[in-house]
Amino acid sequence: MTDPQITVLAGGVGAARMLSGIVQVVDPASITAVVNVGDDLELHGLRISPDLDTITYTLAGEINPETGWGLKGESWQAMESLKRYGGISWFGLGDRDLGTHLYRTQRIAEGATLSKVTAEITAAWGLGLRLLPATDDRLRTMITLAGDDADAGLEVSFQEYFVHRQHGVPVAAVRFDGAEQARPGPDVLDALADATQVVIAPSNPVVSIDPVLAVPGIRALLEARREDTIAVSPIVAGAALKGPADRLLRELGHEDTVVGIARLYAPLASTLVIDEADTALAGLVEAEGIRAIVAPTIMSTPQRSAALARIVLADLLDPS
Amino acid sequence: MTDPQITVLAGGVGAARMLSGIVQVVDPASITAVVNVGDDLELHGLRISPDLDTITYTLAGEINPETGWGLKGESWQAMESLKRYGGISWFGLGDRDLGTHLYRTQRIAEGATLSKVTAEITAAWGLGLRLLPATDDRLRTMITLAGDDADAGLEVSFQEYFVHRQHGVPVAAVRFDGAEQARPGPDVLDALADATQVVIAPSNPVVSIDPVLAVPGIRALLEARREDTIAVSPIVAGAALKGPADRLLRELGHEDTVVGIARLYAPLASTLVIDEADTALAGLVEAEGIRAIVAPTIMSTPQRSAALARIVLADLLDPS
Repeated sequence: MTDPQITVLAGGVGAARMLSGIVQVVDPASITAVVNVGDDLELHGLRISPDLDTITYTLAGEINPETGWGLKGESWQAMESLKRYGGISWFGLGDRDLGTHLYRTQRIAEGATLSKVTAEITAAWGLGLRLLPATDDRLRTMITLAGDDADAGLEVSFQEYFVHRQHGVPVAAVRFDGAEQARPGPDVLDALADATQVVIAPSNPVVSIDPVLAVPGIRALLEARREDTIAVSPIVAGAALKGPADRLLRELGHEDTVVGIARLYAPLASTLVIDEADTALAGLVEAEGIRAIVAPTIMSTPQRSAALARIVLADLLDPS
Repeated sequence: MTDPQITVLAGGVGAARMLSGIVQVVDPASITAVVNVGDDLELHGLRISPDLDTITYTLAGEINPETGWGLKGESWQAMESLKRYGGISWFGLGDRDLGTHLYRTQRIAEGATLSKVTAEITAAWGLGLRLLPATDDRLRTMITLAGDDADAGLEVSFQEYFVHRQHGVPVAAVRFDGAEQARPGPDVLDALADATQVVIAPSNPVVSIDPVLAVPGIRALLEARREDTIAVSPIVAGAALKGPADRLLRELGHEDTVVGIARLYAPLASTLVIDEADTALAGLVEAEGIRAIVAPTIMSTPQRSAALARIVLADLLDPS
C-alpha cells in the first residue's frame, strides 16, 4: 500500500492555518494544496499571488501575525517612496515581500510557469509540502458591485473590492474571468484523483474555493471523490472568522450559516466539520445530505490547528 | 528677447554633476536635459531608467554619495529577500529606489509615456528643470564582447556589461538596438533647436552621448547648432573619472585623450572644455577644429560644479 496522500483545496488565511495544523500531524511530503489564484493581480508590473504567498509565509513561520498577510519584520520603504509619486498604495507591499514578487515576475518573464515558480519559492523557504496553483492560466475573480450609489453595476477586480474598498460594499455577482479557457495546473487533477483524503479548507466558498472549482475538470473530479472529501466550515455561528464570507453568502442568495455551507458542499464532500458553536444546527446540516462532525474549529493557536487536523484526518490517521 | 534656454545632452553621473552646477548659476526653469535611455532595462518586470534616476536623485540632493547611483539612506530588504530565491541580484535595487521603478512601471502599463512619467517623477522631487528622455521608444545599448574567452563575440545588454561584468571585459562593438525606429521624445528637437546654449555633458561619449545622437534627427540638428554648442571632456589626463570611457574609446579605435574627444565632438560642438591637467594638449585639440577652453573640470564638490557651469555658460551669463 502506498503512503496516504492528502490534497487540500485552499484559499488564503483559513487554508494556511488548516495546513499548518496538517503538517503537524502527517508527513508534509504527503500533502498537496491546490490553491486559488483568482485573487492574483498584476500591479506595478509585478505578478502577485496573495493566497500562495499567505500559505507559504504561514508555513515558513514568517507570516505577519497582526495582519495575517505579508511577512513579519517588514519595512515599508518602497511603499513610502511610491507614495511620494502619488502611486497606487492601497495594496500594501512590504520590502521583504516585494522580493517574492520580483522573483516571481522575473521567472515568469523568462518563461517559467506559476507552478514552477511556486515550487521554487516553497523550496527556498524549506517547505515540505507541495503547493499547486489551481491553474497556470489567467483566472481572475471579478466582483460586480451592488448598492444604490454611482458604482452599482461596476465590475472590479477581487483586490479592488477586497482591499481597496475593504469589502465594505454590497456585491451583486461574482465571475471568474478566464475560467472557461483555464486548464488545471500540472499535477492538479492527479493530486485530486490520487488523494487518500481530500480536504476543503475553511476558506471563503464563494471567492476562494469556487474559483478553484471553476477550472474545467476540477469540480467534476471532486464530485467523483465525494466519499473521500471532508470540508471544514468557514462560517461559525453565522459569521466569517475573517473577511466577508458571511456577507457575500447572503448577498449572493445563500444562507450565511453552516447549513448554507452544507448546501454548497454536499455535492462535493461527504462530511462537513462545523464548530461547537453550531452544535444545534448539526441536524439541519445532515438534512442536506452531508455528515456533520462537531469540533472546535477556531484555529487561534498552532495547537488548535493541529487538533482540528487530527479530527479532519481521523479516518486516515486511525483507519480502524 | 526671450529668456536664455540651456539644453544639456546627458548621461548619468557626470551629467548629473554638471546639471547640479548649472542649476546653481541659472534659473532651473531655463534648463532642459535630453537624457540617454540606452542604459534602460526591464528586470523583475520593472522598467528601470538609470540615467534619468541618477540625475533626478542627484538634483534632489538624495543621491547615495558613496555609489553615485541610488538613494541615500537606502535599505536592501527586497534584494535580501530576492537572494533567498536565488533571483537576479547583480543589479542593486534599494527599497526606496524600488518605489520609483514601481511607479514608472505602473504608469507605463497604464499607457503613460516615459516622458510623461519622468515629468511626474521630477515634479514629485520638486526639481525645477526639465528632463526629457531622448526617446520614448525602445532603444537599448548593446555591447559585443571581445577578448579570447568563450564569451568573445557575445552581445549583451549595457547593464550586463557595465554592472554584472563590472565593465571588466574588452569590448568589440557597441550597437543601439531600436535606434533606427526610435523617434525623438516630445519637445526634444524643439529643446535643441531653440536653445540659446547647447551643452554636451562630460558623459561617456560612446555609451551615454552616442545613444542620444543615434535617435534619428538629433545628430543632424546638433550639427546645425554647432556654433552654440559646448562640450565638456569626460576624459582627464587620459583617463575617465568614472566608468570605462577611456577603455571603451581605445577598444573602439578612438584616442583615449582630450584629442580623441575633440575629434568625436568637432562636428557637433564649436568649443571643448578640457581639464587643466590637459593644458599641454590644448593646441592639438584646436587642431581638430574645435576651440579649447582649459578649466578645472573635476566636479568633486557643488562649488566646483558651479564654477565649471559658470565657465561653460560664460557667453550666456556675460554676453558682452
